[in-house]
Amino acid sequence: MVGDTHMAPEPIMDIAHLGHLELLTPKPEESLRFFVDVLGMTESGRQGDSVYLRGWDDYERYSLKLTASRTSGMQHMAFRTRSQQALERRVAALKGSGFEIGWNEGDLGHGPAYVCRDPDGHQVELYYETEWYRAEGALKPALKNQAQRFPARGVNVRRLDHLNCLAVDIRANRIFFEDYLGFRLTEQIVLDDGTEAAMWMTCTNKSYDFAYSRDHSGTKGRFHHLTFALDSREEILRAADIFLEAGVHIETGPHKHAIQQTFFLYVYEPGGNRVEVANAGARLILAPDWKPIRWSEEERRKGQAWGLKTIASFHTHGTPPVDAAH
Amino acid sequence: MVGDTHMAPEPIMDIAHLGHLELLTPKPEESLRFFVDVLGMTESGRQGDSVYLRGWDDYERYSLKLTASRTSGMQHMAFRTRSQQALERRVAALKGSGFEIGWNEGDLGHGPAYVCRDPDGHQVELYYETEWYRAEGALKPALKNQAQRFPARGVNVRRLDHLNCLAVDIRANRIFFEDYLGFRLTEQIVLDDGTEAAMWMTCTNKSYDFAYSRDHSGTKGRFHHLTFALDSREEILRAADIFLEAGVHIETGPHKHAIQQTFFLYVYEPGGNRVEVANAGARLILAPDWKPIRWSEEERRKGQAWGLKTIASFHTHGTPPVDAAH
Amino acid sequence: MVGDTHMAPEPIMDIAHLGHLELLTPKPEESLRFFVDVLGMTESGRQGDSVYLRGWDDYERYSLKLTASRTSGMQHMAFRTRSQQALERRVAALKGSGFEIGWNEGDLGHGPAYVCRDPDGHQVELYYETEWYRAEGALKPALKNQAQRFPARGVNVRRLDHLNCLAVDIRANRIFFEDYLGFRLTEQIVLDDGTEAAMWMTCTNKSYDFAYSRDHSGTKGRFHHLTFALDSREEILRAADIFLEAGVHIETGPHKHAIQQTFFLYVYEPGGNRVEVANAGARLILAPDWKPIRWSEEERRKGQAWGLKTIASFHTHGTPPVDAAH
Amino acid sequence: MVGDTHMAPEPIMDIAHLGHLELLTPKPEESLRFFVDVLGMTESGRQGDSVYLRGWDDYERYSLKLTASRTSGMQHMAFRTRSQQALERRVAALKGSGFEIGWNEGDLGHGPAYVCRDPDGHQVELYYETEWYRAEGALKPALKNQAQRFPARGVNVRRLDHLNCLAVDIRANRIFFEDYLGFRLTEQIVLDDGTEAAMWMTCTNKSYDFAYSRDHSGTKGRFHHLTFALDSREEILRAADIFLEAGVHIETGPHKHAIQQTFFLYVYEPGGNRVEVANAGARLILAPDWKPIRWSEEERRKGQAWGLKTIASFHTHGTPPVDAAH
Repeated sequence: MVGDTHMAPEPIMDIAHLGHLELLTPKPEESLRFFVDVLGMTESGRQGDSVYLRGWDDYERYSLKLTASRTSGMQHMAFRTRSQQALERRVAALKGSGFEIGWNEGDLGHGPAYVCRDPDGHQVELYYETEWYRAEGALKPALKNQAQRFPARGVNVRRLDHLNCLAVDIRANRIFFEDYLGFRLTEQIVLDDGTEAAMWMTCTNKSYDFAYSRDHSGTKGRFHHLTFALDSREEILRAADIFLEAGVHIETGPHKHAIQQTFFLYVYEPGGNRVEVANAGARLILAPDWKPIRWSEEERRKGQAWGLKTIASFHTHGTPPVDAAH
Repeated sequence: MVGDTHMAPEPIMDIAHLGHLELLTPKPEESLRFFVDVLGMTESGRQGDSVYLRGWDDYERYSLKLTASRTSGMQHMAFRTRSQQALERRVAALKGSGFEIGWNEGDLGHGPAYVCRDPDGHQVELYYETEWYRAEGALKPALKNQAQRFPARGVNVRRLDHLNCLAVDIRANRIFFEDYLGFRLTEQIVLDDGTEAAMWMTCTNKSYDFAYSRDHSGTKGRFHHLTFALDSREEILRAADIFLEAGVHIETGPHKHAIQQTFFLYVYEPGGNRVEVANAGARLILAPDWKPIRWSEEERRKGQAWGLKTIASFHTHGTPPVDAAH
Repeated sequence: MVGDTHMAPEPIMDIAHLGHLELLTPKPEESLRFFVDVLGMTESGRQGDSVYLRGWDDYERYSLKLTASRTSGMQHMAFRTRSQQALERRVAALKGSGFEIGWNEGDLGHGPAYVCRDPDGHQVELYYETEWYRAEGALKPALKNQAQRFPARGVNVRRLDHLNCLAVDIRANRIFFEDYLGFRLTEQIVLDDGTEAAMWMTCTNKSYDFAYSRDHSGTKGRFHHLTFALDSREEILRAADIFLEAGVHIETGPHKHAIQQTFFLYVYEPGGNRVEVANAGARLILAPDWKPIRWSEEERRKGQAWGLKTIASFHTHGTPPVDAAH
Repeated sequence: MVGDTHMAPEPIMDIAHLGHLELLTPKPEESLRFFVDVLGMTESGRQGDSVYLRGWDDYERYSLKLTASRTSGMQHMAFRTRSQQALERRVAALKGSGFEIGWNEGDLGHGPAYVCRDPDGHQVELYYETEWYRAEGALKPALKNQAQRFPARGVNVRRLDHLNCLAVDIRANRIFFEDYLGFRLTEQIVLDDGTEAAMWMTCTNKSYDFAYSRDHSGTKGRFHHLTFALDSREEILRAADIFLEAGVHIETGPHKHAIQQTFFLYVYEPGGNRVEVANAGARLILAPDWKPIRWSEEERRKGQAWGLKTIASFHTHGTPPVDAAH
């Protein structure tokens, strides 16, 4: 009746959370307007071809680095470690793994980062030193336990929640994130032939900090979407109203995923990248020994939680477009 | 600009989460009806004078042990550790501390627990081995990533969220939980004379797993409230409607706390214990190096977030009543 | 700039609201369990093969008469007039129209009704005398301006909101309801060839009290759905969760209609009839001279408000099934 | 069991709805910024010392005329009639009543109005001809059954919902509105000595279009508040967050009134006038023969629905201030 008592090896707990990602856009001005005017983000820096953006509850200086580029996609994702020692442990583990790229000198708002690539080629940065955002003037919040004033503009995204990449070999990516970075698998799709088709992994009490799903095009390094958190399902519905008014392409939703039970809404930003707003509610993974939920092909054929069939583009649209991918 | 890079000692990360608490009631049958019919909890065991109860999203067998007693109050709180090794590290730290009581043989649903007392005398249990809840028959959920079917009865509390104790010396309790159990302080009230008057601590990404506030009666070991999580503020409002219809005493709320920004609603269950339902939204503490927010007397005089003055009974009502306390 | 000042004829204002409808079910016991346990309605009478049911905010004794039958469908809809004089005016208008059937002796909870048929053959009853519901015992509400205690069970439907019938000739039905009963058209679909394909009509400040859409099968007298009101979009989402758990077939939704902007969710009750829950929010038609909104074929091709394509069964499933229809 | 069948006189149904009110402010620029930036209203005209404002779902050109003045308060309220004939019937009734003032030439956006005073001296205008708002350019909505694009700015008030005046003699005002304008009483407070202390009246299916409560100062013609409708209780809570951030004085709420069950939030605009945002949910008065709910002193002592005690200023603060009142 009572669980297993043997001494399993203790988990790696070195990654604190997803810090930010760098998104590429061929339409930098229109993308910026989307993130600021429609999503309600705040610009918190500019450097070179990049504008740095934040949700009102992001505690670091930014959670999105938006970079002008010849095409769309994700340039890198960045995770903050729990401590300097934790960062060094991860560097030590990665060195010689074949996945490492090496240290960079940091970026606006954070210190030196150690860069590696996942097996599918997505660039992953690890850093610890960071700049806490300090709101000034009209951006100061009324309550001092809040990073920034609630903007009351557009969708009012709260904070970066997670991201989703495409990959050719999901299993190889899962093992990479488990072994080198200590992420835990919470849910996955496994096809009848045993192929892993999608995975959701976490390093926090959120049920996922990122997901990967299969790139049927066979192209490596592509990006599926980034997701900002809102407080309630009602706010996702209101976001849909706002996207409709703003002429933003709504791909699918609002509806509830069967997997992870996320209440989702997917749109395309002007640069072509898919953006999700989702509620981040009371569902947390508190169990330190959570057993991954495995979904079969048959279960997936039922569609989303309330029966919506997954739209075809959800399985094909990634960024950059296949012919633009490196 | 960029944060501090010195090597701070790494935090203790051995406690996974609040597992359950044991609540005493002098009116066991009426309290049980409250938790089952009004709050929407499910009975998942009986033993001796106790009934074990759960929210539909609690992954363990129960989160509340309701025990018939001559008076009200909390008999013990129980935390699950991240691993067996983590449990043993905490036991080693507590041994000889003067706070330890020693091992018990476990309880329905969990394995051996190590028992200690906080400086104010509240009993704290630590355990690792646990029984995962398995829903059967009509309690089986439609989605397999959910512990139990949504009951659609009463308030439908999702899971135990946190608890709040009273204590005579808050500072002593803070140091105990920091040093021996590795909890992190996220917010606190500090009076003008430097006295710590209340504290909120966490071992997860939730902004608190428990709180303590001062017992002005000078009595030790008393209890303030336990809190169940709901998904949205709208559900808290609906809970108020349901409490009104059920004749449950609403003490204060719904309103938003300035501290922690919790959207709260406090009622008294028939045994006299205070119960809160609160939303557990997108606000998470992701920073591994969160700096505690310190609230002054002057700041507290502003009342709650939207101006509600704290009701007097909130500072005086604890369980057991002062004259019944040991 | 300023509107038209000529003296248009004054509108007929004799119908107060939709009172109830009689639904036929070949599975009376399972249908009853659906309406009581899943929708959260209250039984308020039984007579012959019928059970009478109510939402907690319906002021009359019932809003749904559920009658055991060999097949599904709607037996009649019933409107309450504003006064006895108003009823008599409508009777006078209908007499000799070819649509009249004549008086019946009333039913449980209401007085004599005048019965007629719309051009498509649906039976319509008009009555004025009615029995106000008086909640007793455990059904008494805490607030005396509410008809009945909030049940806190299942979906908790508030009140009957509207119904939707199928008809072969929409235009003929529109003219009937305008001329004989004084309903006002608020929105409609008109095909490129001028054919009216659907209509939404009201006699209140709600934007519709019933709708009709074309029966492509060419069968007369069929029924599309009845709708109960909930207070918020969040409650519709929660209803979807509850339907999923209860194994109820969700046809489509939750999503927002472009027409009327209703936030909808459609399910089938065990007898085969379509049931909707929808939010009844702040959108009201206050203008006494509302100009009907006309939707074209091209506009309808855009799908629902946020892009969902209308599911095929929505255009075909009606009750009774075509081969069972009279 | 079945209701009364005698032929009561038929009700007057000549008033369609509350159209707008004219609010006076000694701080016109700050008041304007409040209504546009914080409440999210849209300016739709200027003339003389007045700015005309609208919510995104108001179908007429405006619902608020904001006029610079030496003090605060309401200059007039305006009701639209159901037809030109209805307007003329009301004029005929008022002529010689002692309450009439006479015709004016209309105003921006509406045609000639007949002006009268209620027994307490508040100015009431009746008009029929009106200008329908036509959104242009960036204000055009995506859905053509909506008056204007959802602004996604600040509180996003939907439409004017109701107003509340103070009066010395409530009963006299009730009789005036019943007899001359055909409003129906839905709820009232009657003191133990029989004095009517407050009243809620309607001419629509909303449960009230205005309210009056006693002016304890004995001053005539003062104003209590105006109310804008939002769609859900969640939006009222979000409004409270936004008012807090904007430094707007929150007087009381959000909470639920026992009377009318309105979910309320009261603030003061910079000119000193009280403004409410409230949800306009599924609660409608559909009964043509609604029996007024009478609340006693004892019942009122219970406070609001969930127990909040009414704040003292709610009984004393009106505009203009007593010493500035004419």
